[in-house]
Amino acid sequence: MSDVQPSVSYSFTMRLYIKNKPGMLAKVLKEIAQQKGDPGAVDVVEVAGEYKVRDLTVSARDEDHSKSIVEAIKKIDGVKVRNVSDRVFLLHLGGKIHIQNKVPVDTRDSLSMAYTPGVGRVCQAIAENKEKVHNLTIKDNSVAIVSDGSAVLGLGNIGPEAAMPVMEGKAMLFKEFGKVDAYPICLDTQDVDEIVKAVKWMSPGYGGINLEDISAPRCFEVEDKLKKELDIPVFHDDQHGTAVVTLAATINALKVVDKEMSNLRVVIVGAGAAGVAITKILLEAGVKEILCCDSTGIINKDRLKNLNSSKAWLAQNTNQNNKTGSVTDAASDADLLVGVSGPGTVPKEAIEKMAEDPIVFAMANPEPEIRPEEIHSIARIIATGRSDYPNQINNVLAFPGIFRGALDARASDINEAMKNAAAHAIAECIDEEGLGEEYIIPSVFDNSVVNNVAKAVKDAAYESGVARRPEP
Amino acid sequence: MSDVQPSVSYSFTMRLYIKNKPGMLAKVLKEIAQQKGDPGAVDVVEVAGEYKVRDLTVSARDEDHSKSIVEAIKKIDGVKVRNVSDRVFLLHLGGKIHIQNKVPVDTRDSLSMAYTPGVGRVCQAIAENKEKVHNLTIKDNSVAIVSDGSAVLGLGNIGPEAAMPVMEGKAMLFKEFGKVDAYPICLDTQDVDEIVKAVKWMSPGYGGINLEDISAPRCFEVEDKLKKELDIPVFHDDQHGTAVVTLAATINALKVVDKEMSNLRVVIVGAGAAGVAITKILLEAGVKEILCCDSTGIINKDRLKNLNSSKAWLAQNTNQNNKTGSVTDAASDADLLVGVSGPGTVPKEAIEKMAEDPIVFAMANPEPEIRPEEIHSIARIIATGRSDYPNQINNVLAFPGIFRGALDARASDINEAMKNAAAHAIAECIDEEGLGEEYIIPSVFDNSVVNNVAKAVKDAAYESGVARRPEP
Repeated sequence: MSDVQPSVSYSFTMRLYIKNKPGMLAKVLKEIAQQKGDPGAVDVVEVAGEYKVRDLTVSARDEDHSKSIVEAIKKIDGVKVRNVSDRVFLLHLGGKIHIQNKVPVDTRDSLSMAYTPGVGRVCQAIAENKEKVHNLTIKDNSVAIVSDGSAVLGLGNIGPEAAMPVMEGKAMLFKEFGKVDAYPICLDTQDVDEIVKAVKWMSPGYGGINLEDISAPRCFEVEDKLKKELDIPVFHDDQHGTAVVTLAATINALKVVDKEMSNLRVVIVGAGAAGVAITKILLEAGVKEILCCDSTGIINKDRLKNLNSSKAWLAQNTNQNNKTGSVTDAASDADLLVGVSGPGTVPKEAIEKMAEDPIVFAMANPEPEIRPEEIHSIARIIATGRSDYPNQINNVLAFPGIFRGALDARASDINEAMKNAAAHAIAECIDEEGLGEEYIIPSVFDNSVVNNVAKAVKDAAYESGVARRPEP
Repeated sequence: MSDVQPSVSYSFTMRLYIKNKPGMLAKVLKEIAQQKGDPGAVDVVEVAGEYKVRDLTVSARDEDHSKSIVEAIKKIDGVKVRNVSDRVFLLHLGGKIHIQNKVPVDTRDSLSMAYTPGVGRVCQAIAENKEKVHNLTIKDNSVAIVSDGSAVLGLGNIGPEAAMPVMEGKAMLFKEFGKVDAYPICLDTQDVDEIVKAVKWMSPGYGGINLEDISAPRCFEVEDKLKKELDIPVFHDDQHGTAVVTLAATINALKVVDKEMSNLRVVIVGAGAAGVAITKILLEAGVKEILCCDSTGIINKDRLKNLNSSKAWLAQNTNQNNKTGSVTDAASDADLLVGVSGPGTVPKEAIEKMAEDPIVFAMANPEPEIRPEEIHSIARIIATGRSDYPNQINNVLAFPGIFRGALDARASDINEAMKNAAAHAIAECIDEEGLGEEYIIPSVFDNSVVNNVAKAVKDAAYESGVARRPEP
């Protein structure tokens, strides 16, 4: 793993007391270079007697690497390390989002209009016509991000408190990319019916529900039940966000290798929330041959009695020839391998057995199913979930625009047509000329993505009859 | 009611096309004066042919008054009214609060620190030690404002959607006055146990729960159950916020009229959430004689079999001589009458029958139990819930500072000691010299209030053993 590059997600700032004589800072920087750390800002804090006090920021590969850099610096004669602060933790102190008032309430007049007595007339107007809640409250720009903390990132079931930083981060992305106000709500229950009830009861003030990091197969049940109960979109991002961006990447990858959906052989490694949703969206996009693998191997009808409901669905709807075997067996002659499982689940031999022009999406985060470095010479197109390789398949390309479009249409649902429209909109952000092996998916900082996705989703909402905002 | 003053809560802006000749604007303004409207800003929009286009803002007494002003203007020769927009509704378009990111997520680096992969380390830290949720998430500055829409302002059971504007307004006050991030959540259930479950399940990300506009007697049960379930403060503001400010006003009113809590005869008109809480806080403050009235009259032990649980409590704990009769009977020889009911429930004769130096708190909002104008010559001290009269008994004096103090102490509860400390802190914001019949309660815009309340509440939290943040 020493080929991993230092990253700001493991960066820290040291306060150093450095003897005030020539060449000392250079010594420190040389030691950092020797340790393969990546130095950033160097600030002078003050001169204290014979010492110059400096704050030095360094990026490392991981926590152990951070520690070894600090230890190495401590050994330099004439340098004292007084304080080491982890930049990621510093950024999280007190949380990452807050509430802001759209107008100040600092005068009698503003108070009488935004609160009592003026607000009473607004309440009355909504009481007389419930539809007015859309115009006269935050509802139409608000999404609840709901998690039970049962499947958080690659960390597993860490509970609602530990899930909060992810939900806050997600809220930030909603705002930054989609101008959507998203409210993180982590639930102190992991019971399907209780989650459904909680969301149903809290729903009146929201224009949509983004389910997040709820483990399979409970996530399918929660979503299905909520979709029936509520008249606002319910969208499990781990399923559909991932599926939409994967479809977008597939559309563009096929252009590069000049293959067709209808002839494609696909292997999906991982049969959790994302794996099931990707299977569904690819089937709908016209793919006919899909093999799904879980940790036991290829999912097939012989295994039916031991499968949960969502894997049973996969057994019934994929693998027509009822193949058995390992990931490597499944990969034989496959055109596209999609990994949505965990680190190291795809051996190099699997990629070696794929058809011509292999396409590999190794999306486990932060550690992919197989390292791109290992298969550079084999695979023609490689995508991951990481920002430090080309072709990052990142949900942030989808969910801000999808919700933006759904809210703009006041949609009652985010349906297949809208998801499909989103995938094509993302794919089309790269024009034919730009398209290539290392550029099948736009950057998350490509400003055109969210607007294109929002427009496509909004239009699809009107066309498919789920839009409720009167057309302008 | 024509003695009611025009207010911005009934203000509107008209777009007027006024013939471009001398004296025309004066004619318009004269007509507004004749109609007893209160003109505000006059903006020139453009000159269109023979017309000058102006936006004219006018405050009225109520909606009918607004309409009659517009009608009168329409009749002026050479003036056309093209558009009338209600300023309060304009302010509510799209809601009144939004989410803001504390740092931008617009670069790879910021994304890797605030979201994946960096956020994973923060989640892991909380998973290993749940206490860290206080430091590393929004929890310690976040309050959920929870309502079921069953008792909103004086409007009654208007449901969760129609309650949203009040909850958003409340969130604005939390932020503006207490720097607290408050999240409005209106529940689609009015069942006590379901409300309790909903709040319990959604609680992990919040540092406190502010219950709001839940009708009695359900509100008592909801609060009691949640206080037992949760390790964060649960505070029903309609009860305790109102009680705290009422106690503060009483403390200062007694200084003005030179009376003592222990000799005071009090009548409470209204036996809902606020009435019960005010009774309790006044009993604890040393008042011995209290009569509570509901729409049937004085609450007494003869009525016990027909009373709900909270009124039964009042029957048992007030009215020692088991008096019967009307509000007017109750008011006979009373020193303080507190109205927390609805418009017009206190007749003028009731005030006429009170003891010397009558103190009247007519707090129904927006329309008080009795108009101050009717009793100016009888009552020595009058307070209302409105901002357009002196002595506004407004919860905003209490809840921002109370929650600020509770959050600062990481309190597990807001207990009697903290509420009592808050009431005294509010009262003490007016010094002896300033105190007078028309100034027993500080202005909601008195900057010292929230800081004084927060400090008093925080100190009381530490003294009473509910503070959990290690003392600095």
